[in-house]
Amino acid sequence: MRRQSGPANSDQRTHILDMSAQLFGQRGVDGTSINAIAEHVHLSKATIYHYFVSKEEIYSEIVINTLERLVEVLKAAVSRDDSPDDQLRSYMRAYAQFLDQNFWRFTTVLTGFGGIQRDNQRSRAMLLRRQAREIVRDIIRDGMKAGVFRKADVSTTAIAVLSMLNWMYRWYDRDGRKTPAQFAAEFADLAVQGLMQDGKSRSRK
Amino acid sequence: MRRQSGPANSDQRTHILDMSAQLFGQRGVDGTSINAIAEHVHLSKATIYHYFVSKEEIYSEIVINTLERLVEVLKAAVSRDDSPDDQLRSYMRAYAQFLDQNFWRFTTVLTGFGGIQRDNQRSRAMLLRRQAREIVRDIIRDGMKAGVFRKADVSTTAIAVLSMLNWMYRWYDRDGRKTPAQFAAEFADLAVQGLMQDGKSRSRK
Repeated sequence: MRRQSGPANSDQRTHILDMSAQLFGQRGVDGTSINAIAEHVHLSKATIYHYFVSKEEIYSEIVINTLERLVEVLKAAVSRDDSPDDQLRSYMRAYAQFLDQNFWRFTTVLTGFGGIQRDNQRSRAMLLRRQAREIVRDIIRDGMKAGVFRKADVSTTAIAVLSMLNWMYRWYDRDGRKTPAQFAAEFADLAVQGLMQDGKSRSRK
Repeated sequence: MRRQSGPANSDQRTHILDMSAQLFGQRGVDGTSINAIAEHVHLSKATIYHYFVSKEEIYSEIVINTLERLVEVLKAAVSRDDSPDDQLRSYMRAYAQFLDQNFWRFTTVLTGFGGIQRDNQRSRAMLLRRQAREIVRDIIRDGMKAGVFRKADVSTTAIAVLSMLNWMYRWYDRDGRKTPAQFAAEFADLAVQGLMQDGKSRSRK
């Protein structure tokens, strides 16, 4: 089979990635076969193998490409703000919107990197995940240094913020009445006020 | 085979549940066979079937029993406090400690109820999960009514609190340097200050 080029080819490739992500997200990588993917995209197994050498290649590409775009989106989002509280709000909104717009691909990312066998691909995925995390850690750390945020454990606070966002893949209803930006704004209200220096309530236990 | 009674019997049964939960948590319910369970507990398949009619029965019992105990633990934890902020702290600490002490069973619960086929069992699991959620919603609602907490969406705020706790199953290291109570206290600092009426920072976007 001769490799096609141009948009049709690239569309079909993207379509295979999207449909595979849906199966990975719903059944796990182990629970998804190339046969199931072929059936789901209404293509022959041979056509799938025309684009990808293995299920693992499909999986790695979903994870790495999704994380690459996430990091870009987050960097762009926070670059427009000056104050740490605005940056934290922007980060959270961009993250929630990205999760909404890339729902199955991001679900695949969030269920772990167990399906990536090649060490260099796995390291790349872990590096990108760390970068996404570093952006919010930097915001929190800078906010504390500037005296805008109270002193708290940077790592735990970053985990708290990311937990609110990541857990969305389990409950967020894309047909629900609230947009991801609205949820993100409510979460950010809690996180920002929870961090502000002028808050009066601290641990009393 | 005659059914034994007494502690030995009950210990073996509990052991099967614990080992199964570990496999369910690590590989998913679909990815775990009765054969794999038998191998993992070093018992014959016949012995497993002596205690449970099916993998589904093992799974349902793990989910329902874990949720029943969680609800009890949460109720007991919050009953000792009067103020909503103390109650929120106690709820979060009890939840995190329960997750730590019941790690694989709770992981099984958190990955969803997909493995429960019987409708009445599934309804029971959903009711219990709702009860665990209602306890924290009540705390938040009462705190707002009493004027201790600022006005916010009760449902979204409860989700934020539960997200911090639930996502722990993905990153929490039981051999790490912080106890679950310490993480819970730091999360609670953020959530409580984030909700306090006297906080100055509110959404500005």
